[in-house]
Amino acid sequence: MTPREQEIARRILMSESRVTKAVFPPTTNHHNTLFGGTALAWMDEVSFITATRFCRLPLVTVSSDRIDFKHPIPAGSIVELVGRVVHVGNTSLKVEVEVFVEDMYRPVREKAISGLFSFVAIGEDKRPVQVLPEFAKASSETA
Amino acid sequence: MTPREQEIARRILMSESRVTKAVFPPTTNHHNTLFGGTALAWMDEVSFITATRFCRLPLVTVSSDRIDFKHPIPAGSIVELVGRVVHVGNTSLKVEVEVFVEDMYRPVREKAISGLFSFVAIGEDKRPVQVLPEFAKASSETA
Amino acid sequence: MTPREQEIARRILMSESRVTKAVFPPTTNHHNTLFGGTALAWMDEVSFITATRFCRLPLVTVSSDRIDFKHPIPAGSIVELVGRVVHVGNTSLKVEVEVFVEDMYRPVREKAISGLFSFVAIGEDKRPVQVLPEFAKASSETA
Amino acid sequence: MTPREQEIARRILMSESRVTKAVFPPTTNHHNTLFGGTALAWMDEVSFITATRFCRLPLVTVSSDRIDFKHPIPAGSIVELVGRVVHVGNTSLKVEVEVFVEDMYRPVREKAISGLFSFVAIGEDKRPVQVLPEFAKASSETA
Amino acid sequence: MTPREQEIARRILMSESRVTKAVFPPTTNHHNTLFGGTALAWMDEVSFITATRFCRLPLVTVSSDRIDFKHPIPAGSIVELVGRVVHVGNTSLKVEVEVFVEDMYRPVREKAISGLFSFVAIGEDKRPVQVLPEFAKASSETA
Amino acid sequence: MTPREQEIARRILMSESRVTKAVFPPTTNHHNTLFGGTALAWMDEVSFITATRFCRLPLVTVSSDRIDFKHPIPAGSIVELVGRVVHVGNTSLKVEVEVFVEDMYRPVREKAISGLFSFVAIGEDKRPVQVLPEFAKASSETA
Repeated sequence: MTPREQEIARRILMSESRVTKAVFPPTTNHHNTLFGGTALAWMDEVSFITATRFCRLPLVTVSSDRIDFKHPIPAGSIVELVGRVVHVGNTSLKVEVEVFVEDMYRPVREKAISGLFSFVAIGEDKRPVQVLPEFAKASSETA
Repeated sequence: MTPREQEIARRILMSESRVTKAVFPPTTNHHNTLFGGTALAWMDEVSFITATRFCRLPLVTVSSDRIDFKHPIPAGSIVELVGRVVHVGNTSLKVEVEVFVEDMYRPVREKAISGLFSFVAIGEDKRPVQVLPEFAKASSETA
Repeated sequence: MTPREQEIARRILMSESRVTKAVFPPTTNHHNTLFGGTALAWMDEVSFITATRFCRLPLVTVSSDRIDFKHPIPAGSIVELVGRVVHVGNTSLKVEVEVFVEDMYRPVREKAISGLFSFVAIGEDKRPVQVLPEFAKASSETA
Repeated sequence: MTPREQEIARRILMSESRVTKAVFPPTTNHHNTLFGGTALAWMDEVSFITATRFCRLPLVTVSSDRIDFKHPIPAGSIVELVGRVVHVGNTSLKVEVEVFVEDMYRPVREKAISGLFSFVAIGEDKRPVQVLPEFAKASSETA
Repeated sequence: MTPREQEIARRILMSESRVTKAVFPPTTNHHNTLFGGTALAWMDEVSFITATRFCRLPLVTVSSDRIDFKHPIPAGSIVELVGRVVHVGNTSLKVEVEVFVEDMYRPVREKAISGLFSFVAIGEDKRPVQVLPEFAKASSETA
Repeated sequence: MTPREQEIARRILMSESRVTKAVFPPTTNHHNTLFGGTALAWMDEVSFITATRFCRLPLVTVSSDRIDFKHPIPAGSIVELVGRVVHVGNTSLKVEVEVFVEDMYRPVREKAISGLFSFVAIGEDKRPVQVLPEFAKASSETA
């Protein structure tokens, strides 16, 4: 591993972020399951925190990749979101968010949703800056 | 056009849905721009309404395709979301959502985000049902 | 039509604003119908957006006229609010907001609420300014 | 005073309801003043509580009368809403809501908004019922 | 009573603050009772308003004492919170908050929760300042 | 260790729950720091999830112990809450919640708040039930 790869491995570990939530009425739709938009908002927040902890720089969301809602999440579940950096570009980061659903009253847990969010680090002039300035990529690599 | 295609054209027109929003503090992050997760939640809601108006059947979100956030939306903007059905399968619908941003005090308007959301119609047993039962697709077509 | 009247007609068309909403649990009271206060907040927001789009000036709400709640809006409905400028004074605007309710699963739609909101345009010193400075009203007209 | 009038006087006193609020960022617009729609939602809630405490019956809002927003309420204020029943019909109640604004750091208090909300008491069949069944109005009186 | 004690008595009366709330779906958990965290947030807000009205100075919450939730508060109740200053230190205030629950449809009212919140007044440099500068405590007294 | 103690140790590990949050405008007061009530609501939610994961039984909050707010949490911070069961009674659980604050842009982290929440497990008749029925405590032990 290069020093850059070592630093990335160390930061991925350190920046992993978790959010647990109880699915209460304010977050559900009329099928009595978690509103899809609420899940997306939670996923975006945990991915943003994960990416920020990785680079400690101002970030903007540039895209979310295809997100599959494998099955509805019933009211009265516990949900755990886990964000992890999975790709480090020159000025960008990709964070994978997995959403697990647990039954409150039985020890059952399964993955319900997963998604990929991309961020770009920006400087005060709002232009992209290196996410790891001390470990710049060789110029032949893509952002 | 087949009768099914005519009916689809009619329903696409009828189900187009719009949401205008003022970007006030409760929806912004610490850069003073619209929180990405809030935008996703709004997009999911308008796509759900559009799809429901098209088929008047219970629906579940199955996926969102890649969503690009072309540029941050500043606090104090007006945002307009437009949802439109763009694909009708056997038991599924795809809705495109475009998000336009307007300056409150100048007549400027541009597209800021767009995304594609997929839904499946479900019956009481939670299994997929036809979105246009009176105009079933030929069996050779895909869902 | 005077040039001012022509401009007003053009702007009324251009500033008409729509908001569609699904009536989900977070917006309902213990009768399982839309909370009246939530309806009022939504009506105020769409009227504010409509008035802002008409004049592209900072505005403050000065009053809402009598609002009739013709019948309760059940959870699980779709609601569409339509805002339209109906009076243009010297420094003020009146916006009518109509609220239609649709059943999610049947093609039924009826007007449930309507209201009238008044706004005044203000300058940096917080004093009233003309809403159409290029087309000032004759001094004999009322604000 | 008739026994009905005495009972009404007693209940008006007993049902007066107060809500104090700090005007924090989630309730403000981009002028950094209280969002008009938030004020309306708060007024509706306190009027509903006042009317419910008066008659202890299920109620629906039927209308709000003209509401004047005398001046904007700045972020960082304290707001106190006071609801009081001002008219008792056969099956209906009218509640006046006054909104006072206080500066957090100076002993200054003034009325900023007032409004009138009308409610009808309903039975299980959703039809109007008497608000004071033990003290029915003479049949010549209007609802 | 010393002048300081007289002033304190006068301000305690003047700063007593009330908040009435209807327990609607957005504030309940999956047992259909008021979410404990929502109750805590409401109690903190009313205690903060009470303390601010007492001294008209910037305040920070320093602690909440043991809070007992005597019994769950069902959805569809009316809740009244009452905040009252119960201790005045040199730079600090203690506010007691009592939470009463009422049945909407029967004249029943009982105390459901009570708690004690402590605040410190701070100056522009974020350091503690006297809550009653005109009536400073003797140096032998504790803060 | 007795089998009961072993099981408790295993479940404490398994039920530890984390919530990371970005402190955005909707959660702040007019000092531009996290609203104390919002912190309390978040702490209650994570303690409830931790306790539920420990016993997989319906729970009600019975009390929160003294909570110290060591210093204000500025807008634009990242906050991490960690819930851990610290006492297991016969029918009750105590959960400690620690709140850490991190600067978004520097690798600084410190404890800002900590609290202790108590829960009782309840059966369908709303009466207390054993939290570890398979590992009942000796009758001489207190709840």
